[in-house]
Amino acid sequence: MYMAQHPLRIGVDYYPEHRSHDLWERDAQLMQQAGFNVVRMAEFAWVNMEPEEGRYDFAWLDDSLQILANHGISAILGTPTAVMPAWVARKYPETLATMSTGHRVRWGVRKNNCFTSGAYRLLSERITRAMADHFASTPNLIGWQTDNEFGGPVCFCDTCRAEFQDWLRTRYGSASLADSTLDQLNGAWGTFFWGQRYNTWGEIQLPEDFSGHNPSLCLDWQRFNSWLNVRFQADQVHILRATCPGHFVTHNFMGLFSELNYYDLARDLDFVSWDNYPVGDAPSFKYDAATAADVMRGLKGKNFWIMEQTAGAPGWGQFGRNPRPDEIRQVAYQQLAHGADGQIWFRWDTCTAGREQYWHGLLGHDNKPLRRYHEAAQVAAEYRKLEPALANTTIKTDVAIIYDYESIWAFKIQPAYGSSLWDPSARGVNNYHNAIRRYHRALLRAGMNVDMIAPSNDLSKYKVVFAPHLYLMPDDLAVKLSEYVRNGGILVCDGRTGVKDATSLMHPRTLPGLLSDALGISIEEYEGLASDMSYGVTGTNGFTGAYTAIQYADWVTAHGAEVLAQIEEWHLENFAALTRNRYGSGYGYYAGVNVKEDAFYDALVKDVMRNAGISPVIAPPPGVEASIREGAGRQVLFLINHTEQPVTMRVPEGKSELITGTPTTGTLTLDRYGVAVILLK
Amino acid sequence: MYMAQHPLRIGVDYYPEHRSHDLWERDAQLMQQAGFNVVRMAEFAWVNMEPEEGRYDFAWLDDSLQILANHGISAILGTPTAVMPAWVARKYPETLATMSTGHRVRWGVRKNNCFTSGAYRLLSERITRAMADHFASTPNLIGWQTDNEFGGPVCFCDTCRAEFQDWLRTRYGSASLADSTLDQLNGAWGTFFWGQRYNTWGEIQLPEDFSGHNPSLCLDWQRFNSWLNVRFQADQVHILRATCPGHFVTHNFMGLFSELNYYDLARDLDFVSWDNYPVGDAPSFKYDAATAADVMRGLKGKNFWIMEQTAGAPGWGQFGRNPRPDEIRQVAYQQLAHGADGQIWFRWDTCTAGREQYWHGLLGHDNKPLRRYHEAAQVAAEYRKLEPALANTTIKTDVAIIYDYESIWAFKIQPAYGSSLWDPSARGVNNYHNAIRRYHRALLRAGMNVDMIAPSNDLSKYKVVFAPHLYLMPDDLAVKLSEYVRNGGILVCDGRTGVKDATSLMHPRTLPGLLSDALGISIEEYEGLASDMSYGVTGTNGFTGAYTAIQYADWVTAHGAEVLAQIEEWHLENFAALTRNRYGSGYGYYAGVNVKEDAFYDALVKDVMRNAGISPVIAPPPGVEASIREGAGRQVLFLINHTEQPVTMRVPEGKSELITGTPTTGTLTLDRYGVAVILLK
Amino acid sequence: MYMAQHPLRIGVDYYPEHRSHDLWERDAQLMQQAGFNVVRMAEFAWVNMEPEEGRYDFAWLDDSLQILANHGISAILGTPTAVMPAWVARKYPETLATMSTGHRVRWGVRKNNCFTSGAYRLLSERITRAMADHFASTPNLIGWQTDNEFGGPVCFCDTCRAEFQDWLRTRYGSASLADSTLDQLNGAWGTFFWGQRYNTWGEIQLPEDFSGHNPSLCLDWQRFNSWLNVRFQADQVHILRATCPGHFVTHNFMGLFSELNYYDLARDLDFVSWDNYPVGDAPSFKYDAATAADVMRGLKGKNFWIMEQTAGAPGWGQFGRNPRPDEIRQVAYQQLAHGADGQIWFRWDTCTAGREQYWHGLLGHDNKPLRRYHEAAQVAAEYRKLEPALANTTIKTDVAIIYDYESIWAFKIQPAYGSSLWDPSARGVNNYHNAIRRYHRALLRAGMNVDMIAPSNDLSKYKVVFAPHLYLMPDDLAVKLSEYVRNGGILVCDGRTGVKDATSLMHPRTLPGLLSDALGISIEEYEGLASDMSYGVTGTNGFTGAYTAIQYADWVTAHGAEVLAQIEEWHLENFAALTRNRYGSGYGYYAGVNVKEDAFYDALVKDVMRNAGISPVIAPPPGVEASIREGAGRQVLFLINHTEQPVTMRVPEGKSELITGTPTTGTLTLDRYGVAVILLK
Repeated sequence: MYMAQHPLRIGVDYYPEHRSHDLWERDAQLMQQAGFNVVRMAEFAWVNMEPEEGRYDFAWLDDSLQILANHGISAILGTPTAVMPAWVARKYPETLATMSTGHRVRWGVRKNNCFTSGAYRLLSERITRAMADHFASTPNLIGWQTDNEFGGPVCFCDTCRAEFQDWLRTRYGSASLADSTLDQLNGAWGTFFWGQRYNTWGEIQLPEDFSGHNPSLCLDWQRFNSWLNVRFQADQVHILRATCPGHFVTHNFMGLFSELNYYDLARDLDFVSWDNYPVGDAPSFKYDAATAADVMRGLKGKNFWIMEQTAGAPGWGQFGRNPRPDEIRQVAYQQLAHGADGQIWFRWDTCTAGREQYWHGLLGHDNKPLRRYHEAAQVAAEYRKLEPALANTTIKTDVAIIYDYESIWAFKIQPAYGSSLWDPSARGVNNYHNAIRRYHRALLRAGMNVDMIAPSNDLSKYKVVFAPHLYLMPDDLAVKLSEYVRNGGILVCDGRTGVKDATSLMHPRTLPGLLSDALGISIEEYEGLASDMSYGVTGTNGFTGAYTAIQYADWVTAHGAEVLAQIEEWHLENFAALTRNRYGSGYGYYAGVNVKEDAFYDALVKDVMRNAGISPVIAPPPGVEASIREGAGRQVLFLINHTEQPVTMRVPEGKSELITGTPTTGTLTLDRYGVAVILLK
Repeated sequence: MYMAQHPLRIGVDYYPEHRSHDLWERDAQLMQQAGFNVVRMAEFAWVNMEPEEGRYDFAWLDDSLQILANHGISAILGTPTAVMPAWVARKYPETLATMSTGHRVRWGVRKNNCFTSGAYRLLSERITRAMADHFASTPNLIGWQTDNEFGGPVCFCDTCRAEFQDWLRTRYGSASLADSTLDQLNGAWGTFFWGQRYNTWGEIQLPEDFSGHNPSLCLDWQRFNSWLNVRFQADQVHILRATCPGHFVTHNFMGLFSELNYYDLARDLDFVSWDNYPVGDAPSFKYDAATAADVMRGLKGKNFWIMEQTAGAPGWGQFGRNPRPDEIRQVAYQQLAHGADGQIWFRWDTCTAGREQYWHGLLGHDNKPLRRYHEAAQVAAEYRKLEPALANTTIKTDVAIIYDYESIWAFKIQPAYGSSLWDPSARGVNNYHNAIRRYHRALLRAGMNVDMIAPSNDLSKYKVVFAPHLYLMPDDLAVKLSEYVRNGGILVCDGRTGVKDATSLMHPRTLPGLLSDALGISIEEYEGLASDMSYGVTGTNGFTGAYTAIQYADWVTAHGAEVLAQIEEWHLENFAALTRNRYGSGYGYYAGVNVKEDAFYDALVKDVMRNAGISPVIAPPPGVEASIREGAGRQVLFLINHTEQPVTMRVPEGKSELITGTPTTGTLTLDRYGVAVILLK
Repeated sequence: MYMAQHPLRIGVDYYPEHRSHDLWERDAQLMQQAGFNVVRMAEFAWVNMEPEEGRYDFAWLDDSLQILANHGISAILGTPTAVMPAWVARKYPETLATMSTGHRVRWGVRKNNCFTSGAYRLLSERITRAMADHFASTPNLIGWQTDNEFGGPVCFCDTCRAEFQDWLRTRYGSASLADSTLDQLNGAWGTFFWGQRYNTWGEIQLPEDFSGHNPSLCLDWQRFNSWLNVRFQADQVHILRATCPGHFVTHNFMGLFSELNYYDLARDLDFVSWDNYPVGDAPSFKYDAATAADVMRGLKGKNFWIMEQTAGAPGWGQFGRNPRPDEIRQVAYQQLAHGADGQIWFRWDTCTAGREQYWHGLLGHDNKPLRRYHEAAQVAAEYRKLEPALANTTIKTDVAIIYDYESIWAFKIQPAYGSSLWDPSARGVNNYHNAIRRYHRALLRAGMNVDMIAPSNDLSKYKVVFAPHLYLMPDDLAVKLSEYVRNGGILVCDGRTGVKDATSLMHPRTLPGLLSDALGISIEEYEGLASDMSYGVTGTNGFTGAYTAIQYADWVTAHGAEVLAQIEEWHLENFAALTRNRYGSGYGYYAGVNVKEDAFYDALVKDVMRNAGISPVIAPPPGVEASIREGAGRQVLFLINHTEQPVTMRVPEGKSELITGTPTTGTLTLDRYGVAVILLK
């Protein structure tokens, strides 16, 4: 229903409760003039809707929704549980999270509730039900957003400890109070180490120190905290589905944020939305926004929305670079090209009060529609031209990268390698993300679209699967990957792939364990390299170039695999840096070192693609991104200039460029931050 | 009375309680031989004066004061409340401050009391009253120092929370228990944001996280903590005034320390003193000591004292560079030149015990009068020659810089721009101070004296007023600044000037808001630049030079203002870096970017001075500071060499150099760290 | 008895409780094949030996010991008190240490017990007694290790405070409850400073902030915490001695770890062992492993064991460089050369579970004997050839360096100099260790063996004594050092030597105090240099070279001493950088600055050695270490190549190289990481 009018939704995040009532009509007029057709509202308005416990006031929101409806604008409402009202904290102090130091956090920032607090869960259900009941039949309400940017906090209260013990009891056997399954937990966590065997569930304490506690305990604690968020959302979704069956339910995710298992969080939703803020430091290729978009699309394997899109420089205490002319348009097109069917700018006005005074919107502090408003309006107008071609299209690709939250968490707990002068948790997460980035960026440079998928996904639809740093690998996953290769797939693995089992124990096998046959190698030793160390690497057997290994090195022995690159050190001259193995009708690649130069990954991707027999529709020049949406017999090519110079490039001739409505000649010039959308068929 | 003998006071901080009694007489003799006429004493001697609760022992101090009197030395006594005795902490544990983590600080360092503790306030009043009663008629006692270096700590106990709520109730309306004025607070803090509206005063919690809590709440919390210190001092001043009407009361401030509103703290005092430690890192122009001196003089608009002057390298755990030959003399002259009528070296001996064993005094750990003692004695002898000329003189200047603690605090809470790799609070304070420094240092280099003034000061006495980074600007201040320009003043503003109102809400106007007419510009957009970013800037319309914008950039549109410098970037070519606007009979300048090169500010100051029709008496060569004291028909020029090379310069001919007592020829050579004092008329 | 078979012990740390029982027999076979004759076991197996309070299970360990015995392998058992079982933490929560923030640490990491907890001490005694009783007559048990790597934690509970007050009462006078001796503490701590005088013992609080609390209080708190560890060990040693008189008792120390007074901890033991992990960053001369070995040998003045020797890259969360081919052999020989009669690799297998999954052993996660196993086996085989020559030999040298824990602690509390951008505690410890390193490394480069000795040692057996940074110097020590020089010794002192007395008060004398005559100098001033500062230094009077003073400078005046190097700065041209003083029949050297260049220390050592009339048996080429073990009429020279290039050098001709069993010609080539052992006589 809500997609009836337009396959592409475009609009803005809107907070009427921040604004004097006499501006509301003008706001709606300006939105309409901009071509907007949707707003998100109310996700921080708990105290406005329930000023005192049990007393509700929705009149103001009804009023605002009606004004928006008068101007053809639909709305999404957020459940407001990301910020509890002050009265909740005062009446129910146990709803505030307890820090690892044992003191309760002081109310006044966001996301400060304990997720095992029964009181908080009941309060959350009550306001959600009250909203659902009240707004179920509001005509221009099209959907719901649960809470806001789930992700914490981690609470160390006694209730959390008790629930964690219960959760473990469920996970490792019977949920009864008997301790009969504790042995299973002792085994899964390897509590023989340091004599940490538990005699009763009640002995289990919370791991305050991820660099010191048992890694298996830490991993389950991370899983538990992720599950607490998922459970909290499920409570709300249950109510919304029952009361508002015609509305969609989504949540605004945070791209590469990795404290929660986003696959789990997405499961209960209709589609994924996310919040995209790629402008800040010096201008450059917005690689991470592309990677994050592919991760977001991968959460449910379908198109997504942007629920908060950079409208200006964001910041709580300070702000960074202002988006340059045409840059927020470019940002929007990049997401559209990766599957964003909704684009909602954050935010309408720039708030004059509170912690986000520097989160700049389309209007300024002066309430004037600024340059950025006009750029957003231009995008909205262009969307209307693109809609016919883009309806029912999405990204289709032969190439996937496995993206796995449990491996990220294992790296967070044990970064494996890296400088000791850096926060270990962040280092671990970065080790993983950088591994992903190395391949994803090389694929972007090659003009390839990529699916980011869970380890549990069906691999058979892909010709190539990258599994970088896939740290946690249960045996069935290793078997599945091997079968994929045997059946003709191309698999690319690298350092720390397949090291651990599902509870973070080390596999008791020579690396790469069950993947040894598929990869044709064995690894008996490996090492981390300090920041002042590097090894020379030289291509061989047709793989050319000289490179530099940094950070990490496996000592890889080829057993049947062909050596494509060699380490140039006296003590490693018998070991390979890169191998390629023919296995069944597929290939298994292994990169045993992290390489400094992009050119290495470009060469690797080129080799992989040649063997996979795939090539991009267009090989973009440096700094230009190419992405293709397909479906309903159509194929639409997006070309996006990430540089601040005009770029001229060859494109297919005689096609239609949809924004300008002109046919393509063989050559096309993209302006600074310029965009072209070409209907290939 | 206390100024009767000498208009210039010179001496040392003295701790007889640290020393065996048989040294006291020799101490006084050595002080007398050095030409000292004043000491400060007793500010850490609470336990010596009140060994047990309610039992007083002043005999030792009477004895010491008498010995000093015998040698013609006057004394200042400090109230000893900066360090509570161990018995206070044990008997009244609630007097110890509570950390944000909820645990009480352990006794044994300084400044560890809670300022809302009724017990502590009563204990403070009692020891102050006992001292005042006892010493009221001591002949050589001339004045009092309250406490020591006010500035904390911030306490998170329940009493502080309750007092904060009361303080807010008073600030935002009626002080009664009724909640009728809470709406005013909700409005002033913009609690509509994130649904933070309060229903009762009791819901207000303390902001433990300045980077996350509501900025308006944080600002009031900072004001409240400043006020707690001011109130604590007022309690003591009240007693001292009543009992010792003939004594002055001062406090030792800390220069550019900015956690308290020093204007408020100075209000109850006769004059300001401060503690000056400018020697540490590699030798260079002691800019900050000059800036701080001008701030200190500005607190009450009159001359000040140095209560602690660098006698040697200071340090609790480690020490830095030792002052070089003649350097502590140079330090003293710099302060004298900026208005210091008292100079008290810290400290007499170098203590053999406790946390300040490395705070080096005039005597060594061996109790011998060292080189630095002899240099101090030389200064004292020279002071006697200078007194006749300096009596009743101070700095008089046409140039002021507005120095505003509330703007500093707003930057502390929201730094606005700067690298994220730095403590945000410190970054914010540095952003402000660096803005001040850019102008103050350029004025120093130009040979100009400067008054540092509060926003509330009368501006009409100045030809030029700089208002850098004046973040908080109530409307009446904007009107006042505009009127100042209209009436012929020259106003220089820059980035983030006038952004916020008195409760840290953003003004809902296009920047620079009410200053737009006076400055002839508008600013719709602005941005922070990451540390790897910069913009080229080029002078125009007679303003010459090529510069580099860093850190921050307003996108300034001139509306009538003349553009003096332009940003050289494709996306900013229509925006100005520096403007000058004729408004009424004055000029409004606006510098929209932070510039890396000193030359930019030198050129700006030159342009400003030309339009103001002012010029320095002497244009000092690089590394030399010039300052003038005037009064009683006299004008005294100080020339101070900050370099380690002799500097030869042109000076007015036929005047008297007062230290050497010789007439000036047209040329004068200052030795390394050399000083000249020339009676111009 | 335990030395009967072999003077050299070699083996591995072994955790049968981590492994399935069916591997135990194979483990023992592989160990035997490797030539191992000893294992250490059980130091983390409390929960295995006492699964529930008071119920013991030693059967599994009996079984494992029997299997090992069958293969000729002896065992050392650790008391398991470094990790309490989970049931201890749950039943006796007061045994967990209290953090400075007041919350109790959460069980699950190591070393988390409070050492004043009576419950913990009783539990420790009980498990120790149960083990001793059970294993007293196990034939292949040869000795005990107390606990594991003593060193914490520091606990802030009320019991610790009470015990600290009691400990102070004992230290400063009568142990009765009367306060009559509190004056002595007030004097020893200089509590006159900041008015910190105590009226009752109960007023003494714990110093949570080493950068703010009284340094004398901090020093005694550090001593107290060291003593708590020593007392805890003594409780166990008492039981072990009584029950197992035929077994040795040792502990695994941690080299340059300095939180405990290792001399005290060593006193109750038969010999010292330590844990050596010198491989990690880029390859280089393993200086610190040599320095630590000499410190360890010095703790009791006799040979020592390695209880944990690098078998692979270690790490809890991440790992560093993998030892290169032959490198763990080189590491073992370096320790043997410095007096290690036992070498136990850590660890047998690489654990698949828990926090040390990345602490790599001789077997991999796959349980296969890796390259490193074979290298260890080679070393064991070589040891059998070397034993006859090495029996009853140790290091004998004319050169000592004083190594003093109390001076380290004083630097930890007050680093004296160094950049403020660094953790002060670590900086202080590094200041001391770097001072030690400068001399020790120069002596290593000169081919000299060195004894590291306590200040209390007999000096008369040494021709040269270095006393770098000997911060704490009671008068009797200064007298002893002076007498040492007068009687013909050569003493080398440097910055901060002799500054403080035994309770961290500053000596009230001109530096170097009582050493002034012996050194022929005086120092009235000194300074710390910021990281951007340095002074030129030039040799004179036959001491050649140009150098750079950094970090610290005394302003040294020679009074009779000969100036060997001069500071080249305008303000220091009358001060010396290096002096040599003839005093009695000896020499006193003083280096007043820290010098950047190694060449300065090489030249100084050369000058010292010439005046001492000593020279090394062999002057090793760069990168090669030479060490000599002597005894029983034999003299054995070790040559160890720290570089990754072969090195050819001259050696005494016609001697026997013991590993190859070949006679030496005049020239010998060491391979990469190569080792030669030459029987000189």
